Amino acid sequence: MRNWDPRLTLRHYHQVRHAGRFNASPPMVLAGGFLFLSLMGALLLWMPFSTHHQIEPITALFSAVSAVTLTGLSTVDITSTYTPVGQAILISLVQIGGLGFVTFSIVAALALGKRISLQHQALAQEAFNQTNVATVKQTAYAIIKITLMLELLGIALFTLWWSGSTDFLTALGRGIFHTISAFNNAGVSIEGTHLVGHVDNPAVILLTTALIILGGIGFSVLNDIRQKKAWKTLAPYSKIVLIGSAVMNLIGFVMIWLLEYDNPLTLGPLDAGGQALAAWLQNVTTRTAGFNSVDIASLEDSTTLLMMLYMFIGGGSLSLASGIKIGTFIVLMAAAYSYIFQRPQVVLLKRAVSADTVQKSLALLLVTATLIFSATLIMTMIEDAPFISILFEVVSAVSTTGLSRDLTPTLSWPSQFLVIVLMFIGRLGPLTLIYSLSIQHRGRVRYPETNFQIG
Amino acid sequence: MRNWDPRLTLRHYHQVRHAGRFNASPPMVLAGGFLFLSLMGALLLWMPFSTHHQIEPITALFSAVSAVTLTGLSTVDITSTYTPVGQAILISLVQIGGLGFVTFSIVAALALGKRISLQHQALAQEAFNQTNVATVKQTAYAIIKITLMLELLGIALFTLWWSGSTDFLTALGRGIFHTISAFNNAGVSIEGTHLVGHVDNPAVILLTTALIILGGIGFSVLNDIRQKKAWKTLAPYSKIVLIGSAVMNLIGFVMIWLLEYDNPLTLGPLDAGGQALAAWLQNVTTRTAGFNSVDIASLEDSTTLLMMLYMFIGGGSLSLASGIKIGTFIVLMAAAYSYIFQRPQVVLLKRAVSADTVQKSLALLLVTATLIFSATLIMTMIEDAPFISILFEVVSAVSTTGLSRDLTPTLSWPSQFLVIVLMFIGRLGPLTLIYSLSIQHRGRVRYPETNFQIG
Ligand SMILES: [K+]
Ligand SMILES: [K+]
Repeated sequence: MRNWDPRLTLRHYHQVRHAGRFNASPPMVLAGGFLFLSLMGALLLWMPFSTHHQIEPITALFSAVSAVTLTGLSTVDITSTYTPVGQAILISLVQIGGLGFVTFSIVAALALGKRISLQHQALAQEAFNQTNVATVKQTAYAIIKITLMLELLGIALFTLWWSGSTDFLTALGRGIFHTISAFNNAGVSIEGTHLVGHVDNPAVILLTTALIILGGIGFSVLNDIRQKKAWKTLAPYSKIVLIGSAVMNLIGFVMIWLLEYDNPLTLGPLDAGGQALAAWLQNVTTRTAGFNSVDIASLEDSTTLLMMLYMFIGGGSLSLASGIKIGTFIVLMAAAYSYIFQRPQVVLLKRAVSADTVQKSLALLLVTATLIFSATLIMTMIEDAPFISILFEVVSAVSTTGLSRDLTPTLSWPSQFLVIVLMFIGRLGPLTLIYSLSIQHRGRVRYPETNFQIG
Repeated sequence: MRNWDPRLTLRHYHQVRHAGRFNASPPMVLAGGFLFLSLMGALLLWMPFSTHHQIEPITALFSAVSAVTLTGLSTVDITSTYTPVGQAILISLVQIGGLGFVTFSIVAALALGKRISLQHQALAQEAFNQTNVATVKQTAYAIIKITLMLELLGIALFTLWWSGSTDFLTALGRGIFHTISAFNNAGVSIEGTHLVGHVDNPAVILLTTALIILGGIGFSVLNDIRQKKAWKTLAPYSKIVLIGSAVMNLIGFVMIWLLEYDNPLTLGPLDAGGQALAAWLQNVTTRTAGFNSVDIASLEDSTTLLMMLYMFIGGGSLSLASGIKIGTFIVLMAAAYSYIFQRPQVVLLKRAVSADTVQKSLALLLVTATLIFSATLIMTMIEDAPFISILFEVVSAVSTTGLSRDLTPTLSWPSQFLVIVLMFIGRLGPLTLIYSLSIQHRGRVRYPETNFQIG
């Protein structure tokens, strides 16, 4: 499944709009839907039945947006603030926000593909490796089915595990909450599912990371694997993302272990197996699930810097993870490489990457970097906290990771509002948001080229 | 004067090498020359006649590289460490490193243009707006002449100024040292020229910033202005750089003033005029001259963040400033803008920017960012200092700015060595260095395009 290209969509939307069929572009529908879901969620969380004690409206809004955008940052302790009803609302927002985003994207792309252009239809088909639109629709439903099956499996295993130490209903509740939170890369935890208590527990850690990886790799890759089964026949994009993820996971795991093994506040007290599990969890969860089994504020600055890069890159396209996406990062690196080594094309696994894709990656990189820079600048003016904690908080919000160096609960309300905006933009994708706001200026004039000094 | 494109140069070099005329590529000659100059300088600075007391070899090397690369970082206090002879050696290294780099680049480009290709020759001519190579050579000499004239003017004015408060010879020494240091964007100071003592002195501050701006805007722009005089007839590149520099200077000046006016450790104690002068100096000198008239370590984190961006961007191409260059930054922003607003070309002032230029800008951005990330990661492992100070030090070294949050004198020797390498790469230009090391792999195979998900 190819990531729906907002540029194509917008162009088609304008064509369709003039034909009088549509009234809003998909990015606007998506943004509107997220906003509506967040406000409804905030209202519900603000109700007396959701909380143990009265909370501020901005606290409820923060929690709702954090859940809908799959971020997991929180200004309050979830277990002591929200009742079981409130917790159920929270995890429902996660599930709707997660699967809703992905299926909406698919359906919008398919609907547009069907109604409008042969070109778009062809793209959707090629991406799905299907021969007609009817089977494409089946594939979309199959994706939802896969999701529910994986989640049911996760719930069963976690419930089984936790029923060993608590009553069945509590175990089931925790199992549902934790599985949805992990598969959707949301990183929200309630009592008993806080991973700090399970730091060296292989069952919990490995099952959690498996769910995170499956949710964060992207549905096109999952679908490709489901259909083709053999490595050799996978689409080039699927192979690139699988290789890239494996390499990043290996480097992250080794680096975090090496940087933290002698840190008495993090991995230091654990035995070798426990250290490996803790390093593995922190590596996986940084792109961009946001769980933690050690104290994030106690990590070394070097580890923190590495984690900021990992949050920035994030997971696969059309997945439940955010960030600029691993495909974007690989395209950018390949473009730089091909310029330096004077290759005539940007090539990945013997397939050329189009100039348009490179340009879109560059735009996404610069828009995201500008967003992080501006937000960090504003927050350093407002908050009196170490620079690294503020930068980490902003990157975590924009990438909807949800890790924090204990800064979130102390944020002033302007900063809370800023983080809400960042989470929202981060999950919608900076480019999608800009597209939905931008007016088309398609110039007809061609300008002559001029020499331009750079570097 | 168009910036010499190392890619073209390297290609031509290979052609010429096979014809048996050249033995080394211009980037290698340049890197070799810088290395030789640095080692010779270090040896001279290490001699007893250069110092008041015995110094470590790495201290001498650090000072020499810092001077040759026009950085101005120092692990020691220059006045109390180096004798007048040592100081004369230092400022000679600055002058040779500064003008040498620029003229070598010009001569190399011209020599190659003359000997090899009509295409390159045409490029050089167009950039110089000359009709034949003979007049191009004259223009190159004219640039050197302009430089020496501007420096003589600066020396005269500064000597005049300082002779009011000290004897003539001391004033002349200071005038020469400070003028060369300012025009070459080197930022090295000796007793009496430390700008902290002149923070609200209009004569010193305005003259210094004028020299910095002239040295940092780029010789092609200076030459264009000298020849055409009228704004309307300037080359598009010259206009873009002049507008971009003016906008950056205005924003930087206002932002620093606003962020620091109530900081009791920086602008707070000054009156409005003094605050304006201090904000103006700190704004101008951050791209990438590196003087300071207030305590850098006492600046707000927000100001520090803004300054890191300014150091990263730097000055004009083919100038005495470093950074990724203002032209590169503008091309990147224009490329992102044109993708978001769906323009068919990247356009600046009704002139299209070539795809090749955009790709080179992207490569330079990513290589520089990777360099900064890696160096910061290493230094956070080695040094026990606040993250923001380490990041600032690394950005300052890579951009050869030379500002420091008091970290340089406390660096361990591995970090000192790292900073030496960063200054060296930063002045040569990360791309130039990689070109000079890279082997050509010009593929003959064209690969088919594939869809690639990003974002
Ligand atoms: K998350
Ligand atoms: K400098």
